[in-house]
Amino acid sequence: MSPVVHLADLIAALGGDLHGEAQTRISRIAPLDEADGETISFLANPRYQSQLAQTQAACVIVAPAFAEAAIQRGENSGAVIVTPDPYLYFARLTQWWAARTRPLAPARVHPSAVVDPSARLGAGVDIGPLAVIEAEAEIGAGARIGAHCVIGQGARIGAGTRLAARVSVGFDCVLGQRCIVHSGVVIGADGFGFAPNFKSERPGWEKIEQLGSVRIGNDVEIGANTCIDRGALADTVLEDGVKLDNLIQIAHNVHIGRHTAIAGCAAIAGSTKIGAFCTIGGAANVVGHLVLADHVHVSAATLISRSISQPGQYSGVYPFEDNASWEKNAATLRQLHSLRSRLRDLEKKNT
Amino acid sequence: MSPVVHLADLIAALGGDLHGEAQTRISRIAPLDEADGETISFLANPRYQSQLAQTQAACVIVAPAFAEAAIQRGENSGAVIVTPDPYLYFARLTQWWAARTRPLAPARVHPSAVVDPSARLGAGVDIGPLAVIEAEAEIGAGARIGAHCVIGQGARIGAGTRLAARVSVGFDCVLGQRCIVHSGVVIGADGFGFAPNFKSERPGWEKIEQLGSVRIGNDVEIGANTCIDRGALADTVLEDGVKLDNLIQIAHNVHIGRHTAIAGCAAIAGSTKIGAFCTIGGAANVVGHLVLADHVHVSAATLISRSISQPGQYSGVYPFEDNASWEKNAATLRQLHSLRSRLRDLEKKNT
Amino acid sequence: MSPVVHLADLIAALGGDLHGEAQTRISRIAPLDEADGETISFLANPRYQSQLAQTQAACVIVAPAFAEAAIQRGENSGAVIVTPDPYLYFARLTQWWAARTRPLAPARVHPSAVVDPSARLGAGVDIGPLAVIEAEAEIGAGARIGAHCVIGQGARIGAGTRLAARVSVGFDCVLGQRCIVHSGVVIGADGFGFAPNFKSERPGWEKIEQLGSVRIGNDVEIGANTCIDRGALADTVLEDGVKLDNLIQIAHNVHIGRHTAIAGCAAIAGSTKIGAFCTIGGAANVVGHLVLADHVHVSAATLISRSISQPGQYSGVYPFEDNASWEKNAATLRQLHSLRSRLRDLEKKNT
Repeated sequence: MSPVVHLADLIAALGGDLHGEAQTRISRIAPLDEADGETISFLANPRYQSQLAQTQAACVIVAPAFAEAAIQRGENSGAVIVTPDPYLYFARLTQWWAARTRPLAPARVHPSAVVDPSARLGAGVDIGPLAVIEAEAEIGAGARIGAHCVIGQGARIGAGTRLAARVSVGFDCVLGQRCIVHSGVVIGADGFGFAPNFKSERPGWEKIEQLGSVRIGNDVEIGANTCIDRGALADTVLEDGVKLDNLIQIAHNVHIGRHTAIAGCAAIAGSTKIGAFCTIGGAANVVGHLVLADHVHVSAATLISRSISQPGQYSGVYPFEDNASWEKNAATLRQLHSLRSRLRDLEKKNT
Repeated sequence: MSPVVHLADLIAALGGDLHGEAQTRISRIAPLDEADGETISFLANPRYQSQLAQTQAACVIVAPAFAEAAIQRGENSGAVIVTPDPYLYFARLTQWWAARTRPLAPARVHPSAVVDPSARLGAGVDIGPLAVIEAEAEIGAGARIGAHCVIGQGARIGAGTRLAARVSVGFDCVLGQRCIVHSGVVIGADGFGFAPNFKSERPGWEKIEQLGSVRIGNDVEIGANTCIDRGALADTVLEDGVKLDNLIQIAHNVHIGRHTAIAGCAAIAGSTKIGAFCTIGGAANVVGHLVLADHVHVSAATLISRSISQPGQYSGVYPFEDNASWEKNAATLRQLHSLRSRLRDLEKKNT
Repeated sequence: MSPVVHLADLIAALGGDLHGEAQTRISRIAPLDEADGETISFLANPRYQSQLAQTQAACVIVAPAFAEAAIQRGENSGAVIVTPDPYLYFARLTQWWAARTRPLAPARVHPSAVVDPSARLGAGVDIGPLAVIEAEAEIGAGARIGAHCVIGQGARIGAGTRLAARVSVGFDCVLGQRCIVHSGVVIGADGFGFAPNFKSERPGWEKIEQLGSVRIGNDVEIGANTCIDRGALADTVLEDGVKLDNLIQIAHNVHIGRHTAIAGCAAIAGSTKIGAFCTIGGAANVVGHLVLADHVHVSAATLISRSISQPGQYSGVYPFEDNASWEKNAATLRQLHSLRSRLRDLEKKNT
């Protein structure tokens, strides 16, 4: 369902300084090295500058510093859009493109949905097939609830928020406006809380009922199969603009500051507070009850085991090698502390 | 939906030795440092003892050792409940509280559920909207099956077990009594088993059909989006009282001993046997075909690659640092084995 | 539902060179050390050769090298099937067994399913209860769509492919023939793509709409709760015969070569290209924009942070120890680079 547009339409919608023919036809967005004569492309990373000369693109989006090189890009030379931030322009182009190629279906409450009479649906709400909206739940104007979603009792979904198919929102949980939640997400399951009770006649873990909820701000995106647990006493909180990838675990009472982005398979353990504008790499883990300052960046697969008060990049990964080398080095690692002692002894002898 | 209770009600239900006014109103449970004049709080960890003097709590739950300090806790002094294990008391308080503030709806089989006529439903069973109960499945008395659950052919759910919305229980799988299973859990998908067949005309992995099942004991809790695969020949087994957090992978033929607790994002590979009373930290992994003794405790993000026969705490994590330090140390780690050799050479020269 | 078969049936279906009584009754498949007098077992790994003499199995499947030992295996001696690859024979035996004990129900479109009139269903398609098939979706002949699946607009499911309950396939995504997809899988959620926009008046991450799709080849198996994101511009691709375990994250624009197998909880970050015939261990991670050659094998829990051009086994895991040892060695690891310098200084003194 690729559309054909003319650059003039695009410039009218998104701005930018056009050099070239406004009637140039565009049917595709692609990287410079995969572009053809109906493709619009972009140069965001100077590393790919050399691709400018070879690209077949009908139009390239560039920053002012590359405007001249793009305009005079040789025999394939086509149109150029100059804009201060080509990557941001590209992002908005994808949004404009998606709105043209994937128009939203008209909103409706599908007859197969099970909507409690006490639920409150705002204007223009879309409820997908077989969705379940429980008592007293509130769906804001223009929100779209996908097929097979379950919105628990008293939960609130903000205006314009979109839930893909098969999202669970637990009772009393709150999502802000314009959020996007992908399939399989579970918001508001019980946090993992138990009191040890191993001296009694019926030894075991005693459940701590999770009496808190989940509160999610505006413009938050949550990836497929990610889990956000409800708080034990107070609430689990995601501030405005947080972006979570797939298969992430957010434990009870975690607090994530605004515009922090977390990559896939990461896990944040209970009661940890992550600052604003942080990035957490894929499969990274943060243990419980820590505080991370604003602008902390955690590398992929790193375990953060202590609080971090200074902005910066933090890493902790065993560097991979061919297996034979790893076996030797890893075995030696188990002797590292004693190697240090032996080194000290030698140093004493040599002073 | 916070209730207001009087301490007298609470003592009547949960016991404990009350010092203070039995008619004290309580509308909230909170930590000592977040308590107000209608809050009940508790001191479980002596580390927080200093908060006793400042807390605004209307009542604090303490162990006998702190009874005097709590009773004489200064100008804000309120009521005190003395009990041998305040954390356990707190757990039971949350249960009592939840039962008051979140009463279960009356059980019913929702008319939109698809229940096979050959399924057997015990007394007082609740079946949520759009749940699917397949042929010959058996739901024990008082069990509650959430919206969109799928209970496979011949599966058995024990009395009093509660499944949240959107849980899959595969055919022939068995859950015990009083279990709690959260949204998105998949019990009884196929284990990951293939025979290599790369010398044939149609090379590829040949599927090993997973002929076993999953057997889960009583009082087991399973967190959101966790997966428990069916066994290849014999069954995958979770004993009584096992507690699993979210997004955990339990592979085929794993056996987990009673009251073992596993934190989020951990994975136990095929045929491994974990003892009783173990704890496995978040994002920890145990490779396949191992045996871990009872009372083994694995730290977060650790890979267990060999069997463990002795109780104790085991760890294996690269310690995180600022990125620049990590880069230097990690690069040197690749030379560690040769560094040891060089140290040996020096030692020889120095003897 | 264990069947009783005679060896003659089994040989007729699967071949192999039978030594012993063709009318031997078989009611069970089990390992050598768990076999009883109606069990068929197999010796695939020479490590278990010693179990041959003790096994109670009614029949054992062995390679030619072990034929004699198996035939003359002492007092419990029973039948023997000799075949070039016993493990492959075992795999096919499980398939044959499953087909007998778990016959597929007759195909039907369940009346509770919500099937758009414009969807195209091939011959013999099975649509489970409460599944949703959106407009223009195409379901190939003999495909089986489980309860609560959602097949998005324009998606295509190949002939003979089986989706367990509760699988989401996003719009325009394509699955090949004879695939198996387990519960909770999400195919075609948005990739995690955002442009930073922190200098504007409304700072935040600007969404990059994911305009690509997911293309999956034939004979692919995908484990429970695994996620495969749609591409940003081009498509995310899994070639024929790829096998994915549970809880795996495949990010946007990843390309996985044919017959590569990936174990549970692994994650492949965006735009990475994995070769054919690779294996990726459980909880391993591969960062984005890398290229891994064919026949690369990554150990469990390893982070691959650079491209790999040579086949082989690669590892990078901190070796676990008792916690006290780990604490000492890990602390010393933070000084490793300076230890190397001190070693160099000593070497200079000693030359």
